[in-house]
Order: sequence, then structure tokens, then C-alpha cells
Amino acid sequence: MENIITSKDNPTVKLYQKLSSSKKERLQYGLFVLEGLRIVGDALREDSGITQLILTQKAHERFSEELLQADLRSTKTIVISNELGNKIASTDATQGVFAMCRIPVQRKVKHIVSSGGKYLVLFGLQDPGNVGMMIRTADALGIDGVIMSGSCDLYSPKVIRSTMGSVFRMKIAIENDADVLFSELDDIGAVTSAAVIDKDAKPVTECTFEGTQAVFIGNEGNGLPADIAQRCTQKVIIPMHGNINSLNAAMAAGILMWELSK
Amino acid sequence: MENIITSKDNPTVKLYQKLSSSKKERLQYGLFVLEGLRIVGDALREDSGITQLILTQKAHERFSEELLQADLRSTKTIVISNELGNKIASTDATQGVFAMCRIPVQRKVKHIVSSGGKYLVLFGLQDPGNVGMMIRTADALGIDGVIMSGSCDLYSPKVIRSTMGSVFRMKIAIENDADVLFSELDDIGAVTSAAVIDKDAKPVTECTFEGTQAVFIGNEGNGLPADIAQRCTQKVIIPMHGNINSLNAAMAAGILMWELSK
Repeated sequence: MENIITSKDNPTVKLYQKLSSSKKERLQYGLFVLEGLRIVGDALREDSGITQLILTQKAHERFSEELLQADLRSTKTIVISNELGNKIASTDATQGVFAMCRIPVQRKVKHIVSSGGKYLVLFGLQDPGNVGMMIRTADALGIDGVIMSGSCDLYSPKVIRSTMGSVFRMKIAIENDADVLFSELDDIGAVTSAAVIDKDAKPVTECTFEGTQAVFIGNEGNGLPADIAQRCTQKVIIPMHGNINSLNAAMAAGILMWELSK
Repeated sequence: MENIITSKDNPTVKLYQKLSSSKKERLQYGLFVLEGLRIVGDALREDSGITQLILTQKAHERFSEELLQADLRSTKTIVISNELGNKIASTDATQGVFAMCRIPVQRKVKHIVSSGGKYLVLFGLQDPGNVGMMIRTADALGIDGVIMSGSCDLYSPKVIRSTMGSVFRMKIAIENDADVLFSELDDIGAVTSAAVIDKDAKPVTECTFEGTQAVFIGNEGNGLPADIAQRCTQKVIIPMHGNINSLNAAMAAGILMWELSK
């Protein structure tokens, strides 16, 4: 058994906590954090830039063989006490498996889109759990890429956890300039659809979604800004027979992606 | 300003905490708890059996006028200190609005279903956030009722919170006996569809879902038990082009309800 770290002043442990709590620190170091056996395992298997593995004593006994197979043995690893693990964990019942991972070079819209693809644009989304679930669902339904614009930090621990590993599989671009975003979608001939709840919008049941498509989803509480919806080729609505306030942004995005991908 | 309670030994505060943490206590008292301005407001407006309102001093100043309008002034209310509010809160940034609410008389399947309706059956679901989101989406899409079988406690604070008030609007029945469940669905001539990920199942894109319909969703990790899927009229699958492990149970249920309700 390696040397077991018990001090919260250990530099690696301190860095983990900084990265976990601050977007600024994540940007400065170009690193983000992962927690949990499944997502850390996914990142190791898909060679997704893990720079440091942190295991509690218990996790080291239970999982290190599974995590550190074959050529992955070169991954830098420290073992910390279970108590320290509970301190840095973001969940009550932590598995004690933590990692730091390099933030990939940010891809621009034009790098991930191509003619004929189906894309989801998250415009002004702020709930990390929602954003993670949408990325995860995009992965399930075979959407070709996700574009984030004016939304929460993709590399916050909550977003990463909610993607359940899909963050390592999906093509994701960040473009906060709406002019650039529309221009690059225009370059590939994308039909842009604004998801709204206006009565005069086109019901998605009447849309065909053929060819290159980008669907814009707006903020959880406020929806899409009027000028952004206006710039889209069309406004679309999910016809509902029930209480429209009960459809959350992630579920609305899921239904739209399902219609896109059918 | 009323008398402000600061002691965690106050009987009402103690009862709130018991109800919050234990299904057994909820069953014994026939009460469950609500937290948050919106859901407590919904419950008050829809006359959903609130027996006790608990407001922090801050919430009392900010929200009591909004909450206690007109004939609702008769609702029993206590005011607690902000510190005590933080102690009993289930979220980090509580609004300080809490209530106890009577658990309605449990309805049987036959009391909520009728010929021609569309129903969702949650079979063995265990994640409270998922269950709440499914009830909320059922409400949005105009599903006629939700049946819970062998699933987590509907009245746990996490399920209640995730429904965002839809628990007060949806018809919900609990039936843990599969024989009774199938027999009562049979009585209304329901076509029962088991949501599975078997390749030989019928793609939902080929289903018409006409007439009386009940769609069975299984456990997050294990899906539906084979014998339950076998007893259904048909097995259905959501065709996916991507990573099938990325579609979570709530999102799968949402897509199926969308197809049911179109």
C-alpha cells in the first residue's frame, strides 16, 4: 500500500478542491475534476486526459485493479484516507474515486458541425443537472453535436457528473457570440428551430426536420430571448394537452431531439 | 410578529423532521412534508390538505401575505428562526417555507383508470428525482394517470419536490400486487406495453398507441423483470442511434409518453 495522505493541506488535495469549486481555477489550470467509479473508468478507458487519480484507502482496495489495467498503470495516483475522501466528495455516499482531467482545447462550432448533421444549441441554460442530462440524451439519441452558448460551465462537477460519461463521447462546442453562432450554422445550411411556447409557433408534430438541423433550447425559467428566437428559421412548439409549466427544459430538449433523430 | 420558535425540540419542528426522514413516520401520522414557496403555494391554492405551515422569520416577512390570502388565513402557522429553518431544510439555499400535508386516501388502480385513457406504470423505480420528473412530465403531456408498483415512496420529500406541484394535479394510484394491477388494466381493455431494450421488441415508431394504453417503465438499473415484460401485450423499444446506456429512465418515459399523447 502506498503512503496514505491524511492532510487536507496536501497540494494535490488542495488543487482538487479548488478545481471543484471554482470556474476561474479550472480555467487557470486547464483542469477539471471527476468523481465516481463509472465516470473515472470511462475517462481512463477513453484516454480522456486524466492527469491524476485520487483514491481513498477503501476505494484503492476495492477498485484499483479494475481502474488501473494494462497500459493505464502509468496514471499518477495518490491514496488518501477515507475521512479525507468524505471531505472532498460532492456526494454523501462517495465511492472514493476522484480524478483530475485536462480540459480539451475548446472547439469552435465550425469544427464540430457538418452538412446534414443534427445539432442541439443550449442557449442560456443555467441548471447543471439539466445541461448534463441533455448532453447524455443527445449521446443516446445519436445527435451529432451540442453547442453551448451563454450557458453554465460545462466543466463544473455537477454538469460532468450528470452527463454520466457522455461528455467524453459527444462533440461539444462553446460559442458565446450569437453572430458567430448563426453565421457558422448558416455556412452549413442549417435550418434553425427555436423551441418556444408561443401559440403561433409550428407544432413539432408538423415538422419534418430533414437535412441539416439545429434546435435552440432556452433558459429554464425565461426561455429563449425574443431576438434569438426571431433570428431562427422557424419557431417550434411541443403541443401539450396538460400543464405546460410542468415540462422542464431537459425533457423538452429530449422530446425535440427524439423528433430530430427519428 | 408571532412568537418565534428557536428550539429544535419544539414538537411541531420535531414532527416535521421525523416526517421528512422516515416513511414509517409518514405512514403512522398520515402526513408528508413540503418545502419551497412554489409547491406550498400550489398546495394551499389547490386545497391539498395542508395541516401546518412553518415559516422562517425571513419567509414570514417576505411571503406570508402571498401565501395566506383570503380564506386561507385559517391555516395553522408557526414562525421559526432562520437558523432553525436552515437546520430542517433539505436544500442549501432554503426559502424558509415548509408545510405538513395530509397523505390522501390511497387510490386503487380501478379508481383512477377508465376506458380510452393513457397511463404510465412505474414498476420498481427507485430514484426519487426520476419518479418526480416522470409525474411532472405526465402532467405536462396530459397523461391520464400514473400507477406506481414496487417503487419508492411517493411521499418522500425528494419525489414531492421533483414533481414541482404535479403531485397535486395528477391522478396517481399505488398497486404493488402485479396480479391485481394486470387484472384491473385488463378490465378497462388496456393494451399494455413493456418498455425494454430487447432488439426483438417493436420500435415505438411503429406503434400507434390507439385506444386504452398503459406503458410500463422498469427500474433505472435493471429494467422491467422478464416475467412482467412477458405479461404485457407487447414489448416496445425506443430506437436509438447512439449510446443506449445514456438514455435514463425518466427521459425514456418522457419520450414514450410523448408518443402516447401525440
